[in-house]
Amino acid sequence: MAVVTIERKVLQKNDEIAQQNRELFQKNGIFVINLVSSPGSGKTSLLERTLEHLKGKVRIAVVEGDVQTDLDAQRVAKLGVPVVQIVTNGGCHLEAKLVQDALSNIDVANVDLLVIENVGNLVCPAGYDLGESMKVVIASTTEGDDKPLKYPAMFRNASVLIINKTDLVPYVNCNLGELKKNALQINANLRVFETSCTTGAGIPEWSEWLRGKTKRT
Amino acid sequence: MAVVTIERKVLQKNDEIAQQNRELFQKNGIFVINLVSSPGSGKTSLLERTLEHLKGKVRIAVVEGDVQTDLDAQRVAKLGVPVVQIVTNGGCHLEAKLVQDALSNIDVANVDLLVIENVGNLVCPAGYDLGESMKVVIASTTEGDDKPLKYPAMFRNASVLIINKTDLVPYVNCNLGELKKNALQINANLRVFETSCTTGAGIPEWSEWLRGKTKRT
Repeated sequence: MAVVTIERKVLQKNDEIAQQNRELFQKNGIFVINLVSSPGSGKTSLLERTLEHLKGKVRIAVVEGDVQTDLDAQRVAKLGVPVVQIVTNGGCHLEAKLVQDALSNIDVANVDLLVIENVGNLVCPAGYDLGESMKVVIASTTEGDDKPLKYPAMFRNASVLIINKTDLVPYVNCNLGELKKNALQINANLRVFETSCTTGAGIPEWSEWLRGKTKRT
Repeated sequence: MAVVTIERKVLQKNDEIAQQNRELFQKNGIFVINLVSSPGSGKTSLLERTLEHLKGKVRIAVVEGDVQTDLDAQRVAKLGVPVVQIVTNGGCHLEAKLVQDALSNIDVANVDLLVIENVGNLVCPAGYDLGESMKVVIASTTEGDDKPLKYPAMFRNASVLIINKTDLVPYVNCNLGELKKNALQINANLRVFETSCTTGAGIPEWSEWLRGKTKRT
């Protein structure tokens, strides 16, 4: 009973700080996505391709969340984008306070789009609001087509589903129609994109849609 | 502060029940693996191939852990193996008590090998002892070669690493040598197997090794 009460307090405190983040983002006209997926679905690769496509068109900043290492931040930094790495040190998800602290290192007055790449985890990040405009969930074709049914909270709380690694469909056991059907069964409002970071397929469509969400359209 | 104390109590309680499970397993001569990985790495497929290989040689039972659905239990049941499904209803990992409850549905006196398939999550299940003989972590080649560095606790706590989906190596950005090097850097004692559930490569080696761990050798 005590655990439940404290968990509720933790979530309540998180929601309060998320609201502060959200107000800061709105005040500065920043569109913010919270990028979530399993480990290895291609969050960082998709981010790299998106940054390449939007370079010079939109002012972007990135917050990287990882359990350990700054490998992802190093990859993103190579593209000349401001990036702050959060290392959770074992923590399974980002929390609003961690993002708030990271924001002190970002020149928010000169950002149109902020991408927060969450810890690779299809369960825990679903419950933590960071103040984002929307959650974007990536599902890799290599994970099969049943994941929306088995991890429904993440697909329910996301606004966009990106089906990534479509170039691998011929080699894996994944029916794209079934995957989409399962996802829309959980959340009929999901906007679905299909991408391959290897061939570049779908990257312009997704990136331009995202650009349309920023004030720099 | 209160949260930390309660979390410690939760883990302490879990360890107590895990120890009860362990004693039950030892009393009945059951070898138990706790199968962990990201969502979609191929835990259930590997289990299916392993069950096929060991059919008639070892008496096996399975406990399936999922956030939602009994899809995995249905797959395993088709192979004629006793299986109990635990649905965590949003919970991001199995706990010893859930396994203890599931055991009441298994005829432990007639089992040589128990496979517990955990929730797909490369972070949270690392911290929860279920009473298993060892943790077996699966890494899919499609996830890239950096995951041991980014999710070290799971690789540190595992005894075996199975590198799965080796048939996809030609199509993905994963250097097998680098993946092994990264894993052994985190845990030099890891026993490593390479498998493909599509071609069947490596399944006999892994299955026979596992069989060698049971009393039915």
